[in-house]
Parts: sequence; structure tokens; C-alpha cells
Amino acid sequence: MDALGREILQRLDRAASCSEPGPGVTRFSFTREHRAVGSLIEEWMRRAGLTTRWDDAGNLVGRAEGGGTDRRTLIFGSHQDSVRNGGRYDGMLGIVLPLVCLETLHAEGLVLPYPVEVIAFSDEEGGRFTTSLLGSKAVAGGFDPAVLAMQDAHGVSLEQAMREFGADPGGIPALARGPEDVRAFVEVHIEQGPVLENAGQAVGVVTALTGIERHRLTLTGKASHAGTTPMESRRDALVGAAGIVLELDRVCRETPDCVGVVGELDIAPNVVNVIPAQARMTLELRSPDDAIRVDARERILAQARRIAEMHGLGLDSALVYEQSAVSCAPWLIGELGEAVVAATGEQPRELFSGAGHDGLAMARLTDIGMVFVRTPDGLSHHPDEALAAEDAAVAAAVVLRLLQRFG
Amino acid sequence: MDALGREILQRLDRAASCSEPGPGVTRFSFTREHRAVGSLIEEWMRRAGLTTRWDDAGNLVGRAEGGGTDRRTLIFGSHQDSVRNGGRYDGMLGIVLPLVCLETLHAEGLVLPYPVEVIAFSDEEGGRFTTSLLGSKAVAGGFDPAVLAMQDAHGVSLEQAMREFGADPGGIPALARGPEDVRAFVEVHIEQGPVLENAGQAVGVVTALTGIERHRLTLTGKASHAGTTPMESRRDALVGAAGIVLELDRVCRETPDCVGVVGELDIAPNVVNVIPAQARMTLELRSPDDAIRVDARERILAQARRIAEMHGLGLDSALVYEQSAVSCAPWLIGELGEAVVAATGEQPRELFSGAGHDGLAMARLTDIGMVFVRTPDGLSHHPDEALAAEDAAVAAAVVLRLLQRFG
Repeated sequence: MDALGREILQRLDRAASCSEPGPGVTRFSFTREHRAVGSLIEEWMRRAGLTTRWDDAGNLVGRAEGGGTDRRTLIFGSHQDSVRNGGRYDGMLGIVLPLVCLETLHAEGLVLPYPVEVIAFSDEEGGRFTTSLLGSKAVAGGFDPAVLAMQDAHGVSLEQAMREFGADPGGIPALARGPEDVRAFVEVHIEQGPVLENAGQAVGVVTALTGIERHRLTLTGKASHAGTTPMESRRDALVGAAGIVLELDRVCRETPDCVGVVGELDIAPNVVNVIPAQARMTLELRSPDDAIRVDARERILAQARRIAEMHGLGLDSALVYEQSAVSCAPWLIGELGEAVVAATGEQPRELFSGAGHDGLAMARLTDIGMVFVRTPDGLSHHPDEALAAEDAAVAAAVVLRLLQRFG
Repeated sequence: MDALGREILQRLDRAASCSEPGPGVTRFSFTREHRAVGSLIEEWMRRAGLTTRWDDAGNLVGRAEGGGTDRRTLIFGSHQDSVRNGGRYDGMLGIVLPLVCLETLHAEGLVLPYPVEVIAFSDEEGGRFTTSLLGSKAVAGGFDPAVLAMQDAHGVSLEQAMREFGADPGGIPALARGPEDVRAFVEVHIEQGPVLENAGQAVGVVTALTGIERHRLTLTGKASHAGTTPMESRRDALVGAAGIVLELDRVCRETPDCVGVVGELDIAPNVVNVIPAQARMTLELRSPDDAIRVDARERILAQARRIAEMHGLGLDSALVYEQSAVSCAPWLIGELGEAVVAATGEQPRELFSGAGHDGLAMARLTDIGMVFVRTPDGLSHHPDEALAAEDAAVAAAVVLRLLQRFG
């Protein structure tokens, strides 16, 4: 198996060379780097016995028909694009690893009894245009044409970029698959967090993708002289904001399966000897269970209102983004767990994904399953993102087992 | 007395017209506005029976010799300069009010038995050059020639500005008075805070000018994915900073005669879905009692270290500014308090000054006393800075009483 792991890492190194100059991997959608990595992937798809086609969303689709009567397709895949100065495993692992597995079976002359596809989705990160999951939404039927007008940093619209790439946005609606044609979507992805590393396990089975909500809060107090204003007369917006930061942290620490952060905070006037008059902050909460997230939100916002009142502060808050959680299919969790036991002899570690993935969009279409692979230091979206060949080999063994038992 | 109050406010309105265009008063040192307000003040000095001279620090000095044997001078004064878009009472009140009082006595033919001066100090705010208290330091003997090289926003050095104004910096050392020639310095100033307004009193007697210290703290954690990093694995610099903000607030609220603020806070990377890796913040403490301030500092910094350790954060802290407290002379506090009782029939409200004043510099030379006048809403350094004519009248009555009993 270790040879498979090394092969996977070598291919990921080759794919990483399809990047803008600079540290790490910078590969945006509908660019020459996208085309270059697609050419590599096409070659690997053909070696795995798949036919290849580029679709009108810029996805590269490899497909093998099944040898049996089952007409419903098992789809693997992930995204080809990266963030700016990202790593070489995020996304690409979920394309390369199943291709290496399928090539292994193909080389043995094995024909699977069901159709299988591997899709290199065009865009998940949204690093160039401020929309994400474009490729998987097109396949799953969740594409919103309004995003075509979005412009990149150079003023090029998404529509223009797609046309120059050879993709016709007008063809996107026809890309949507019907649920009756698809059996499941399986994504292999680096964990991007420390759970598996801390547990000492190479792979884990994802139970759900978290829901996410984001709020923008503005606290308004009064700027006054830091020397002449008695403590009891102050309306210090930062003191209020600090209380909310700690309250969010406390609630999330006390609540299983819930994480949250205040990632942005700006105060005004931001001068050493003036009481802060305003604090603007974001508040983000995630949970694989929407009810847990909503309950945490209500506790935190109630406390925020209490804190604002206590300090004589105005409080405006607005929910600016909300995405419900998506559960992985119990039967796929079971299949993948069985494959983990077979591959490692250990009970599978189940965990949820705190990050968004193509599976979020694909869940609209079909049952989804995800395999996470241990990520050293939990480091991702960074040039130093890493993956051990032995861990890739374990994940490949899990996928091979799934492929062989499926259908 | 009310006529005196109205006269004082009318003169302050005239002085306010000596300003750069724009909201409120903008009058910096060694400018045409400085010269213009000086011409007004010279006229008022002469009407009060004072001889006038501009000194080499840009101070305008009005003096009347005493009719008795006491050769030690009672000096009144404050600063002519303003912050940008400041108010019309900050500083100027302490020049205009004693001049109106002296003019009243002069008009009655009264000759005081001791010499008296009123000084319009050239610069206290430091709004043009980043040094402050220039005028009063020259008179008190605390002038540092190194500041002459400082440049304003247009690249004009302080020395050049002074020379163009007609002041010879080389003459500054000779301006320093000897303690044997000066009996006391008395400054009348708007409170710039809410204490007198809350107490319902027109004036108060200042017991001390606070000491001030400022620190810069940097907390260093680790940027990581807000969705994939479990709460217990985080090293969130903002959570640490928030703890320190609240700790400072708590200590200052619990400690009489101590105020403090975190006025500046900047976090990085400051992105909605990334754990804050760094927080840079200022920490300012003030107290009229240095021991209280130092004790509060030690408690807060000890707690900051504990908080940093608890969250796995690096903590760098540096004391970047420290100014000891200055006490007003007990005998002057007594004299001014007696004058308040005589003028108002009420016990004098004693308070400390949280802001810096020319008295800070003059305390090096002689005993100082300060009278604070009620400031609506505590608002200062703002175009809407206000003063009631009745309150100015009460302050004038206090100064008249002091002048008549002194010596």
C-alpha cells in the first residue's frame, strides 16, 4: 500500500507545479493554471480507464460505465482550485486519490458493476470571484446565474472568464444531475484541523458538515477624555466588546459540537488616551447541529444585549450569513467506517467538518460521505500544508475497500 | 458678579475668532493666530494695569508690581493654544478670567501689596509640534533644547517657527525664574470632565494633577481555521486581549483615585473566519497618587501574564511613558477652598485633575493651585465645549477673594 501513498504524493507534487509564482499553490478558476492542472488530471483519468470531458461550469469529469445493471453513479471528487498561497493537498487530494485507486483496479482488469465518476470541480474556494462552490453547485443543480456578473480583482467578470476558458455559462442549467442517476458523492479531504492528529489516527469518517452563521455587531459608546472621565461615567465600547468576546468563547467552550470566534474587531477612535466610542466586530458560530448553533447564538446575543445595557452602549447586530448543517448519510458513514476497520484494524474516529466543502453543495443532489485525512499541525491554506504518504495510503485503502464493496 | 461672568465669556468669544478656518478653535503656537490672540490679550493686560512683554518662548507676560514689601510674585496663567477644532475655554479661560478680575480691582484703584503676573503660555497642547508645555517649561526652568529640532506637518522646525514669530530660542534658558522670586502659580481651567456637573457645583479645588503611565502590549497566538480548530486547541490573541481589557477595567473600578483605559487595540489577521493570531494594545493608567498607580499596574500586568499563559499566548509589554503625579500646595488648596466658601456658601468640592496642565511644569518652580470650572457634559477638545456665564462669575469671585486675601 505504501507505493500507492507515494504515488499519490508524487502526483500532488506535480499538480502543485500548476500554480502562479510565489509561495505555496495559487491556482484560481478559469486560468491557465486551471487548464494546466486539468491536462494532468485528464491524463490520470485516462490511465484509470475513464472517459473525460470538460463541462460548461469548468468542471473536468472522468467517467467509467459500470459492468452491471446498476445505472446509478458513485461520484468522487473535490476542487482543483486553491486559496492564494495555499497548500498542495486541500482539494486536489480528493481528485488524485480516487484516480490512483481506480487506476489500480483498472490495471487489475477489474470492471466495477456500477458507473463511477471523478470530478475535478472548477471552483470551491472562491479565491478569484467572491462566490464559492461554483462547480459542485452546477452539478447538484444549485447554481445561481446572478454570480456571473461578479468581477475579479482585474475587473474581469465571471462570465467573461468562463467564456475565455471555453465554458459556456448558458450550458450550466443542463449540467444538473437527477437524483435518480446518482447513488452517492464521496469526498476525500485533508482534515485541516488537529482532531485526527491528537487522536493518533490516519483517517476519520465525517458525520456532518457544520452549519455556519456570521453576525456583524456594532457597539456605540462615547468618546471621552481618558483622564477626566471617572470610571463610573464611561461608555467604553471596547469594554463591552471584550465582554462579548469572552462570552462567546465561554459559551462555545461549554457547548459540545460548537465553535465560534470573533475574528474581526475594529475600534474608534483607537487613540491611547481616548475612551473607545465604537467597536465593530464579527461573530461566527459553527455546529454540525443547527439547533445547537441557534441555541448558542441566542445565549450569546442575549448576553451581548445585557453587556451593552450595563455599559450604556448602543448595540446593533445583524445576521449576515447563515448556512445550515449537512449530515453525511448514515449508510455511507457505516460503509466508510467498515472500510477503516478493514484497512487499519482500528475503530473509525468519527468527527464533523468545521469547514465548508463541495459536499455541502452535492448534498442537495445525493447522499454524501467524507473521509478526512490527518493534517500535520492542522495546518491548511498555507504553503506548509503537509500530508504523510502512509496516511494517504491508509485513505487509499479505505477508498479501494469502498469501491470493491459498493453496488 | 454676573456682569463679570458675561464679560469673561464675551472676551473668550473674541479670542475664539483668532483661529484657523473650520469648526471650533484651531490656534497653534507661533502662528498668525497666536499673534492675533496675543494682541487682544495685550490690550486686556494694559486695561488691567499690567505691563506687557513677549518672551523668547513666545509667552505673553503681563505684570504689575506690588505696592507692599513682598517681592514674591503670584502668577496666574494658562495656555493660549488649542487642539485642532478645539473649544474656546480650554486654556484661554485661565488667561482671560484673572485679567478681568485684575481689571476690576484696578478700576477700583486698588493696588495689591504683592507683584502679580498673568502669563499666556505659548504652547501646552503640543498640537503643532509633538512636544507640550513648552511655554510653562521655559518659565519653570524645565525646557529641553532638543525639542527645537522637531518639525510640524509642513516640515518647519520648532526653532524656525519661533524665530519667524520673533522669539529667540537662545534666550529661553534666561527665562527660568528662581523659586525665591515666585510665591505661587494659580491656574483656572475648565474641568473637562463630569465631576462638578454631577456634584451640582460651579467650581472645584484641585488637589493634585494625576500621574500617567502608558504601556504597549503585544499578545501573540496562532492564526488557525475558525471552523476546524477545536476550542481547546486555540491560541486566540483576542480572547487574551479581551481578558486584559476587562481586568484593567475591573481594577480601576475597584481602586479609588485610579482610572485606566485600553484606548488602542488592533488585531491580525482581522478576518471573520480566522483565529486572531496577534493583538496589539495600549494600556494607560492615571492616579493622583503614584503608589496607587504603580500598585494597579502591577496587579493588571500580573493578571495579563496569567491570562496569556492560560491561553498559550506570548506576551510582550513595555512601559512607554511615565509622568509622576504633582500635588497642589495644601495652603493654596486651603486658600482657594476658603474663597469658594465665601463665594458660594458651599463647602468646596475637592477633585484631582486627570489631564495634564501648565501647572505640571510650574510645580517644578513653585507651589501650585488650580480651580476647576464646571464643564457641561464634560465635553472638551471639541467645538461644542461650553461654559455658563454664572459659573465663570463664581470662578471670578473665587479669584477676586484670593487676590484680596493674598500676601
